Amino acid sequence: MSILPALADDQLSPEAAAVFADIRAVRKTDFVNNFWRVLAHDPVALRRTWQSIREVMAPGALDPLTKELIYVAVSMANNCEYCIRSHAAAARAKGMTDAQFMDLVAVVGMAAETNRLATALQVPVDAAFRPAADPPFNQL
Amino acid sequence: MSILPALADDQLSPEAAAVFADIRAVRKTDFVNNFWRVLAHDPVALRRTWQSIREVMAPGALDPLTKELIYVAVSMANNCEYCIRSHAAAARAKGMTDAQFMDLVAVVGMAAETNRLATALQVPVDAAFRPAADPPFNQL
Amino acid sequence: MSILPALADDQLSPEAAAVFADIRAVRKTDFVNNFWRVLAHDPVALRRTWQSIREVMAPGALDPLTKELIYVAVSMANNCEYCIRSHAAAARAKGMTDAQFMDLVAVVGMAAETNRLATALQVPVDAAFRPAADPPFNQL
Amino acid sequence: MSILPALADDQLSPEAAAVFADIRAVRKTDFVNNFWRVLAHDPVALRRTWQSIREVMAPGALDPLTKELIYVAVSMANNCEYCIRSHAAAARAKGMTDAQFMDLVAVVGMAAETNRLATALQVPVDAAFRPAADPPFNQL
Amino acid sequence: MSILPALADDQLSPEAAAVFADIRAVRKTDFVNNFWRVLAHDPVALRRTWQSIREVMAPGALDPLTKELIYVAVSMANNCEYCIRSHAAAARAKGMTDAQFMDLVAVVGMAAETNRLATALQVPVDAAFRPAADPPFNQL
Amino acid sequence: MSILPALADDQLSPEAAAVFADIRAVRKTDFVNNFWRVLAHDPVALRRTWQSIREVMAPGALDPLTKELIYVAVSMANNCEYCIRSHAAAARAKGMTDAQFMDLVAVVGMAAETNRLATALQVPVDAAFRPAADPPFNQL
Repeated sequence: MSILPALADDQLSPEAAAVFADIRAVRKTDFVNNFWRVLAHDPVALRRTWQSIREVMAPGALDPLTKELIYVAVSMANNCEYCIRSHAAAARAKGMTDAQFMDLVAVVGMAAETNRLATALQVPVDAAFRPAADPPFNQL
Repeated sequence: MSILPALADDQLSPEAAAVFADIRAVRKTDFVNNFWRVLAHDPVALRRTWQSIREVMAPGALDPLTKELIYVAVSMANNCEYCIRSHAAAARAKGMTDAQFMDLVAVVGMAAETNRLATALQVPVDAAFRPAADPPFNQL
Repeated sequence: MSILPALADDQLSPEAAAVFADIRAVRKTDFVNNFWRVLAHDPVALRRTWQSIREVMAPGALDPLTKELIYVAVSMANNCEYCIRSHAAAARAKGMTDAQFMDLVAVVGMAAETNRLATALQVPVDAAFRPAADPPFNQL
Repeated sequence: MSILPALADDQLSPEAAAVFADIRAVRKTDFVNNFWRVLAHDPVALRRTWQSIREVMAPGALDPLTKELIYVAVSMANNCEYCIRSHAAAARAKGMTDAQFMDLVAVVGMAAETNRLATALQVPVDAAFRPAADPPFNQL
Repeated sequence: MSILPALADDQLSPEAAAVFADIRAVRKTDFVNNFWRVLAHDPVALRRTWQSIREVMAPGALDPLTKELIYVAVSMANNCEYCIRSHAAAARAKGMTDAQFMDLVAVVGMAAETNRLATALQVPVDAAFRPAADPPFNQL
Repeated sequence: MSILPALADDQLSPEAAAVFADIRAVRKTDFVNNFWRVLAHDPVALRRTWQSIREVMAPGALDPLTKELIYVAVSMANNCEYCIRSHAAAARAKGMTDAQFMDLVAVVGMAAETNRLATALQVPVDAAFRPAADPPFNQL
């Protein structure tokens, strides 16, 4: 059903197979989901995307669950069913409860409404929400 | 610059003035930002939106800072400058650091990319990400 | 198929059951559509959303059919299949004809095109379309 | 400020000048707004867009004001400042009151919220909202 | 499954039938895809849209394949499954290879990410990217 | 004006400074635009994004100008002023003419319209546009 078919393990290029091996090692499971199987048609994009996700979702100033909640919320705002379902599953695996999920949904809905109200009314940004001074170069 | 002008305190209807009084009491500041001043042209919408935001953003299964981070992320995905700036300010007031903000930005960007990749390739949802069984009514 | 399953009547919390009773009384039908059955996992959001919709869609400066047409058009612009189908059904129930529906579709398409042309070309807003003067406070 | 500069009357190609003459004749004003002045870099697109808009916005199954309200609402959903401001001005010229505008804004905001809730929860479409039968060709 | 049913050839109005005849003549095939069959409920929109697409997609400053690639990319950004699939098929018919398709997908994903990063951070446009001077009319 | 200030060269971390040096070496200019100066608050994201863009935009199955045209088109669809202006400048530097730019704009507008028409009408995908068979694993 994807535009190009999801690839089975024995259809992978050596470069793609190496990324699949890393996905399995990091996730400690043999399961590789369709996103990677379709993206494997472009082994360079496959490697780049996998490495970028690992880097972005690693523990940092925000903990992994908070990052995952943000990922789910953005996927909802961007209307991506695949991403909503796969990252909601990832969030559950990191401890998200049903109540937390419903809280997240309520915030996504509320933000969508006020985002559109502010846009619809073309509300000007208050001075209090702007930086005190612009940087002195590149003609900001 | 808004479509209808932001209203000064002495231009408010009694219903809108009552909401402004509640905003000031809850937030413990005299400052009322432009969003509410423009929305005040519709006192019913003003009251409803204020009450809804209070309800949604109250501590629940998710803590207030996490909710605010999600609010900012969704505002970025929805491309609302007013909302990005005002809720980033709110998040800071609740303790968000610059490093946390940059982490949030990185997740928003990464999700935007993989959201579009999944859509572009029309990747089918894996069975593992779907509920085991559909509810037995309303022909789900 | 929803992320959390739609709830049957005997799975509802007392708070959610009360909202369902009100939906049935107002709509004069026993049928409660899936949107409410899934949202019922969060009874507070269920009540808030139901009350807000009733308030927004009540007769006001715009009549109920015009409001419903706008609701359908926005749902199309936001790419929400559930909302397009459910609100198109609601619009029909309020009298929308096929010809009116096709007129609405034509406007949605035309607006989408010129919206993107204006954005693509970054057309500056004419002075004639801006308010004559900015309000004198909050540094608009 | 546009990507290509808005064109003055004496910079127009003959084809573009003819379209401007028609805009002025139809609107009974010498004023031609920036949208057309920038689009005039592509006289074929200028003519096509002007003719299409005239056709779409003419009285039909929906009256001109209702069409204009839908145009404004879609422009809000699509986040196009130029279009919100220019079509809000057009709607006023056709009789839209401030109260009607605020009603429209409330519907746009409400739809944005429930659109996102339905997407976030991946609510399945009720059978009642689907056509009774699919057409018997093209494997619908 | 569409909101109004796709129309069979013997259900078309004379105006719609004439457009179908032109589609078949231009494309040199008897196949008319569902998009036109549903749009045929509004023969005026059917004719306008068909003529506009022919005009826009004709060879010009950009060649037909490049235009089709852009069409596919925009359809991905706008999240339209029908359009992604039908225009990807059209691009293949014009010579697009799998490798070119995957290159296109990579650019769409990368642009989505940096678009959101620039929005999230509210990066100001560099002077180097703005026109040197504004046109002297319409108060640009 | 950005949420966090654009950084001057002497405010960069060593990691960010190394990326700036590479940007200057590759582009053969001392100019570093604001996007990188704001993103420099997160040196890891700075490096990742710069490397990813270089990889994605390198000559491949599609030539650099075609990739840049797609980048601009997606930025228009995603409504990112910074990205429209900066990548339009990049496209010009790679040879894009005004006529090519206007052709691109016409396609972006046309796609936006038909994308929304297909969504509005919920047109079902023709069998001719779907792959002949689904892959036999992961329950596609």
